[in-house]
Amino acid sequence: MAAVIDVGILGATGMVGQQFIRLLDAHPWFRPRWLAASERSAGRLYADAATWRLGGPVPASAAAQRVEACTPGQGPRLVFSALDAAAAADIEPAFAAAGHLVVSNARSFRMMPDVPLLIPEINHDHLALIDVQRRTRGWGGAIVTNPNCSTVVLAMALAPLRPFGLRSALVTTLQAVSGAGYPGVPSFDIIGNVIPEIGGGEEEKIETESNKILGELTGTQVTHHAVVVSAHTNRVPVIDGHTMTVSVTLDNAPSATEVAQAMRQWRGRPQELALPSAPPRPIEVLEQPYRPQPRLDADRGTGMTVSVGRIRPCPILGTRFVALGHNTIRGAAGAAILNAELMLADGWLEER
Amino acid sequence: MAAVIDVGILGATGMVGQQFIRLLDAHPWFRPRWLAASERSAGRLYADAATWRLGGPVPASAAAQRVEACTPGQGPRLVFSALDAAAAADIEPAFAAAGHLVVSNARSFRMMPDVPLLIPEINHDHLALIDVQRRTRGWGGAIVTNPNCSTVVLAMALAPLRPFGLRSALVTTLQAVSGAGYPGVPSFDIIGNVIPEIGGGEEEKIETESNKILGELTGTQVTHHAVVVSAHTNRVPVIDGHTMTVSVTLDNAPSATEVAQAMRQWRGRPQELALPSAPPRPIEVLEQPYRPQPRLDADRGTGMTVSVGRIRPCPILGTRFVALGHNTIRGAAGAAILNAELMLADGWLEER
Amino acid sequence: MAAVIDVGILGATGMVGQQFIRLLDAHPWFRPRWLAASERSAGRLYADAATWRLGGPVPASAAAQRVEACTPGQGPRLVFSALDAAAAADIEPAFAAAGHLVVSNARSFRMMPDVPLLIPEINHDHLALIDVQRRTRGWGGAIVTNPNCSTVVLAMALAPLRPFGLRSALVTTLQAVSGAGYPGVPSFDIIGNVIPEIGGGEEEKIETESNKILGELTGTQVTHHAVVVSAHTNRVPVIDGHTMTVSVTLDNAPSATEVAQAMRQWRGRPQELALPSAPPRPIEVLEQPYRPQPRLDADRGTGMTVSVGRIRPCPILGTRFVALGHNTIRGAAGAAILNAELMLADGWLEER
Amino acid sequence: MAAVIDVGILGATGMVGQQFIRLLDAHPWFRPRWLAASERSAGRLYADAATWRLGGPVPASAAAQRVEACTPGQGPRLVFSALDAAAAADIEPAFAAAGHLVVSNARSFRMMPDVPLLIPEINHDHLALIDVQRRTRGWGGAIVTNPNCSTVVLAMALAPLRPFGLRSALVTTLQAVSGAGYPGVPSFDIIGNVIPEIGGGEEEKIETESNKILGELTGTQVTHHAVVVSAHTNRVPVIDGHTMTVSVTLDNAPSATEVAQAMRQWRGRPQELALPSAPPRPIEVLEQPYRPQPRLDADRGTGMTVSVGRIRPCPILGTRFVALGHNTIRGAAGAAILNAELMLADGWLEER
Repeated sequence: MAAVIDVGILGATGMVGQQFIRLLDAHPWFRPRWLAASERSAGRLYADAATWRLGGPVPASAAAQRVEACTPGQGPRLVFSALDAAAAADIEPAFAAAGHLVVSNARSFRMMPDVPLLIPEINHDHLALIDVQRRTRGWGGAIVTNPNCSTVVLAMALAPLRPFGLRSALVTTLQAVSGAGYPGVPSFDIIGNVIPEIGGGEEEKIETESNKILGELTGTQVTHHAVVVSAHTNRVPVIDGHTMTVSVTLDNAPSATEVAQAMRQWRGRPQELALPSAPPRPIEVLEQPYRPQPRLDADRGTGMTVSVGRIRPCPILGTRFVALGHNTIRGAAGAAILNAELMLADGWLEER
Repeated sequence: MAAVIDVGILGATGMVGQQFIRLLDAHPWFRPRWLAASERSAGRLYADAATWRLGGPVPASAAAQRVEACTPGQGPRLVFSALDAAAAADIEPAFAAAGHLVVSNARSFRMMPDVPLLIPEINHDHLALIDVQRRTRGWGGAIVTNPNCSTVVLAMALAPLRPFGLRSALVTTLQAVSGAGYPGVPSFDIIGNVIPEIGGGEEEKIETESNKILGELTGTQVTHHAVVVSAHTNRVPVIDGHTMTVSVTLDNAPSATEVAQAMRQWRGRPQELALPSAPPRPIEVLEQPYRPQPRLDADRGTGMTVSVGRIRPCPILGTRFVALGHNTIRGAAGAAILNAELMLADGWLEER
Repeated sequence: MAAVIDVGILGATGMVGQQFIRLLDAHPWFRPRWLAASERSAGRLYADAATWRLGGPVPASAAAQRVEACTPGQGPRLVFSALDAAAAADIEPAFAAAGHLVVSNARSFRMMPDVPLLIPEINHDHLALIDVQRRTRGWGGAIVTNPNCSTVVLAMALAPLRPFGLRSALVTTLQAVSGAGYPGVPSFDIIGNVIPEIGGGEEEKIETESNKILGELTGTQVTHHAVVVSAHTNRVPVIDGHTMTVSVTLDNAPSATEVAQAMRQWRGRPQELALPSAPPRPIEVLEQPYRPQPRLDADRGTGMTVSVGRIRPCPILGTRFVALGHNTIRGAAGAAILNAELMLADGWLEER
Repeated sequence: MAAVIDVGILGATGMVGQQFIRLLDAHPWFRPRWLAASERSAGRLYADAATWRLGGPVPASAAAQRVEACTPGQGPRLVFSALDAAAAADIEPAFAAAGHLVVSNARSFRMMPDVPLLIPEINHDHLALIDVQRRTRGWGGAIVTNPNCSTVVLAMALAPLRPFGLRSALVTTLQAVSGAGYPGVPSFDIIGNVIPEIGGGEEEKIETESNKILGELTGTQVTHHAVVVSAHTNRVPVIDGHTMTVSVTLDNAPSATEVAQAMRQWRGRPQELALPSAPPRPIEVLEQPYRPQPRLDADRGTGMTVSVGRIRPCPILGTRFVALGHNTIRGAAGAAILNAELMLADGWLEER
């Protein structure tokens, strides 16, 4: 793992694309050297083509690069996809067919049975679906996805609870506006307000993706976990960080202390491999009251840690708590980068 | 009901006191003629003693009145109490003992078995506890309370569901900052943020008050309703209006349409009596997506209507929806005023 | 003025169009009976064609009307224009040519020498330009405009200062997001933030429109007032109400008390005629510190009053103060309605 | 400058105290080893005594220290003061008399003729007032102050303009809530709102402190600069970062390009000495439109850089622009730390 490898970004000028560029700016393994976007941007300098919205200056390495068109077969073998779902539906398979490993944040292929929907701490072994995917589709490359930004937080909080007999999870989200992309939610709609619905099938995504992620790979397919998820989604005037209240049914009825301990001790393959983007502790359990809060806690573990607080009994389902994660880091670009780190470390980037 | 009667306000200079003054400014039955507050304010003109925070000018009728001390036995027979819980604990019983009918927004006596915890649409008959209270305590007056600002919204949404076999209600609140009084939540804590806990026993209040409100008066006591309530509370950067997601278990498993119809058709004694503060429809069920929203819907029915939206199946508990109410009108001053209107209309203000 | 007359609205489904409908819902003189919008909306019920964003339900009178296309010659003689500038540039002259009196909120024709740019309290006599306009352009109808939403507030605050020798006005605006229309400013850009520029030539509009409004009609043309205006514009996370700090040079160097008195005593033709939308006092001078504030004061005079506070000496220009007005009422739809009321009262709606 | 020296913090548990602790956590020269606060906190562990409000965990080095009382003569020679003005008025002179070098953020002594009011890039030579102070007052130690959080930003933007003949500066501030300390501004007052006044003499501070800072030390006293400053202050719902619009009169009437160049090229002694907290460029001039913005630009130069944008002609005063600085870093704790770094590097911490 000595050499730095070149990577590409599909949809590099958009909001998620900018997050990839920011997070990869000083990455020890990956160097973004091929920035692709729509025809409208192609040929222009990145600094001119992208309206940089993330604070501070455009990373110098990206600023001077010329934007490419999204042409399959061009660019590095490993490409991150920050495309929206509509564009991803066509472009990602074309790149996979042309031999690229597409590490995607788009929702288009997440629920395909042969596509890994990955949270490396939970289901790193689902990467074996890559071989299924290649066989089935005849691709030289592959598509690997990360979950919806709310699902990531929920699934990580639930993963350590599986040994307790996880049966159901009723979640209410309070989601940040950055989750809606750009321009996203009009300020007239959300300043001093709450919008009690996210739209775009958000609740359905949360209610189905977790089952695949928490599921078990047996042979060539993933048996979905049986947990029943119910999601109420809300938009709140917060910039970054999805907060959620969660009530869970656990067959073994553990105490709050046991739940906290299980979350605190939980580690996964990224921690074992000490991947560059892996937080030392995937979940931090906060003891202080009134926490976690998005503005204070979303950045823990450079945005890759899920914070949990207020673990206590629920008079209806048994156990309840609050969970919080950074929706554009652990919930989007950072998630994809961690996926790619795992793929590199576990040998999936080698030619086969 | 021809004559306008004089009423007093305890704690008239604070935030809730100001809401009483605003709502009573043009009230057809009640005229606030006795404004009492702490020793510090007593003797000063109301306009000088109170820092008016509600927009527009101080109502002229109140501005020129001289603030009184909270001396039991002085002032009108009917007094509204906007005192905080600590002050209410001592002052309200003293007023009741001195013959006043104290219509209180404070939490101090809500759960006392002989004190009505009133939502007139739901349990107007609980006013009969006044007689119990007088007998037990030897008071010439009485204390009548309204619920916590979140409980009101929840209890109103649940009331029409009792015929379906209401067994449990899991609620997550997104509460406005006006619910914390003044100065309340520091702006540094809440701008662009969520605080996933309200403090002050808010969750416990929500989890117990509903049972009393929805309970049945049999003889001289209220048998609490058996519904199990679980509450996750959150503060959000909203000025007025508590939003809540609710999942409920209903034994009869009604369809979303049946739930909506039950809520829409629900009326109570305030509507029957056409009380001045009674909204024509206590609950409005909104069909539009993305609703109800606090900034757009909290003022429905001049703040006395609870708005419900997104009624749909819950994969865990059976039925779920969003509810919203104005926390300082239906959830505080307006609630107390409606209570007093009911008391006047039903003869409880007459000397006995 | 006994009879209610029918009026039309161009661009009725947009944000400003909705404001017209809300403000005209119970108007004593005008009844919106012809709601026109783009081809896409034409033929649909208004309630279906417009996504209502203003709180509460769609006014019933409008909800059931069928949306018309913007066809000149159809609809009532008096039409309000809520069109954006691009659409207005073509459509408004076509309607004026077809005999309509177009009372417009768009910026397209404001600075044309033969088009009244009206604030009825200041320059009601500029309506005489209608005759010039008709002669010059051969129109049966005419276009009458109201100023930019920031200019209105500034010009009203400056008008009573002309007798003191008004020489210059340096203004910094803090503008609400509703001024940007819908979807307007993305929430990601403005939550917890300030954008120190409005764009779209806002500063230039403020720096030129005031001179025309404050100017004198002599014969057939307006001699612009010589005041030099400098505008710094900012967007802030406020829903409604443009706040501005203003420093002015006044040759006569009046005291703060004299300035306050001049503003307080200032009245215009709308007050004289007691027009329905005319606030009793066009300017309210607030004595309290920390005022005016948009959330507390923008609604004064049902949004038609400009609030001024903190009048005090400026060590550089001589006098300074804070001004505030409701940008979508006095600064847009309400302004146009007041213009039309003036036109009706002063006989400009009669056939000539 | 090899060895790390111990420093103390007066008022270590408050908001500014926490900022000192955060900024000093990994400081190459200073190690906070003596954390003093009120009697109420003394004796407790810092982690218990302080409610940490700055995001992330309490720095481990501070967490385990026991809080001391503010007893003069105890603790290190160099102490930072995060006291509020009332406490500072008594405590700081007592510490200076006891031999401490008090590097203070409080306003109490800023305008004393023998106390340096320091912005190291501008007036590092004013440190010579320390000798005057000691002689006059007979102190072994001394008090050195940094300016008000708005003044810092303004004075830095004005400093490079002195060669152009700086005559007047008319500034309107849009200030973040963190400038008000904690609990500071109630959220009920500022969400979706603007408060057009800061209170506490803020405008007077801005209008007088700049003159001292920009003044010239001649012999034993500072001749104040003659620039006339006029300040309109506003509070806006922003967490960190004071934005201000500035119009200036410059006798030489430079072009916007010349002004930009002067600001860009401006360097001071901190840059010359490469002090640890010195930003490479004290002022960054941004070319992009709509900038600087507090949420995107306040952190430039780790909060020590002032950002300037929109330099353009002002039709009244000649030149105008927007300036922005981080009010709790460059405007408070970071300013004091830079002052102390300068004092150490220039030999003022040595015994004399």
